[in-house]
Amino acid sequence: MTDLDLEDRYRGYLMCLNERRFPDLSEFVHNPVVHNDRTLSITEFQDLLRRDAAEIPDLHYAIERLVVQGEQVACRIRFDCTPAASFRGIPPTGRPISFVEHVFYRYRDGRIAEIWSLIDMETIREQLTPGHPDR
Amino acid sequence: MTDLDLEDRYRGYLMCLNERRFPDLSEFVHNPVVHNDRTLSITEFQDLLRRDAAEIPDLHYAIERLVVQGEQVACRIRFDCTPAASFRGIPPTGRPISFVEHVFYRYRDGRIAEIWSLIDMETIREQLTPGHPDR
Repeated sequence: MTDLDLEDRYRGYLMCLNERRFPDLSEFVHNPVVHNDRTLSITEFQDLLRRDAAEIPDLHYAIERLVVQGEQVACRIRFDCTPAASFRGIPPTGRPISFVEHVFYRYRDGRIAEIWSLIDMETIREQLTPGHPDR
Repeated sequence: MTDLDLEDRYRGYLMCLNERRFPDLSEFVHNPVVHNDRTLSITEFQDLLRRDAAEIPDLHYAIERLVVQGEQVACRIRFDCTPAASFRGIPPTGRPISFVEHVFYRYRDGRIAEIWSLIDMETIREQLTPGHPDR
């Protein structure tokens, strides 16, 4: 698989998430998959992503930077969205927030085997904290 | 410049940081450089990295994942270290901490032109908070 093929595969994965086709995730992700050093069954992984989308109904994965090499993908993803319920334990305000995720993937045989994700929780917390100067 | 050449350049940059050769940074970084959407002179950028190394004398940049494509580099960097002074506003405890940075770089003519860095501040905060269950 060339870097361009893998890039297409990865874009297909994010499209799957943006279209909320969670049952199709197994096309893109191994079972089990390792996520931030935890081994998850595909069902547990689907539940994780379903929960994010339930807490933030307009969650949309937008690529800002994408780097593909061999069986590795790295992506900076921008989210401009409005949480409707508590997200990662922080209650919503009804107002929109903007934050990024920096995430690395290791593919194996065309599907994601390992994920290392870092979300800018500090920015989320600041934007969801009443009276914070950023708001 | 091939992906392998760029990887070498990037490893040279981290070695420069690990060896505290801050005056040599201009070999690896443009002046000015854009860091998390702020435009910094090379002197301001050197001061930023000097400050990190002053607060954490044993700061060592260890590559965990490295992805190189065209003029882009993405790296997951592990830090196992012991802050000696307040780091990003959080007082030290005298005990070691472990955290990661996920960082994207855009190169231009073999030197870093733009940086998008995300540090796992949540993990740092947890490890430096007295009485936290992780400690």
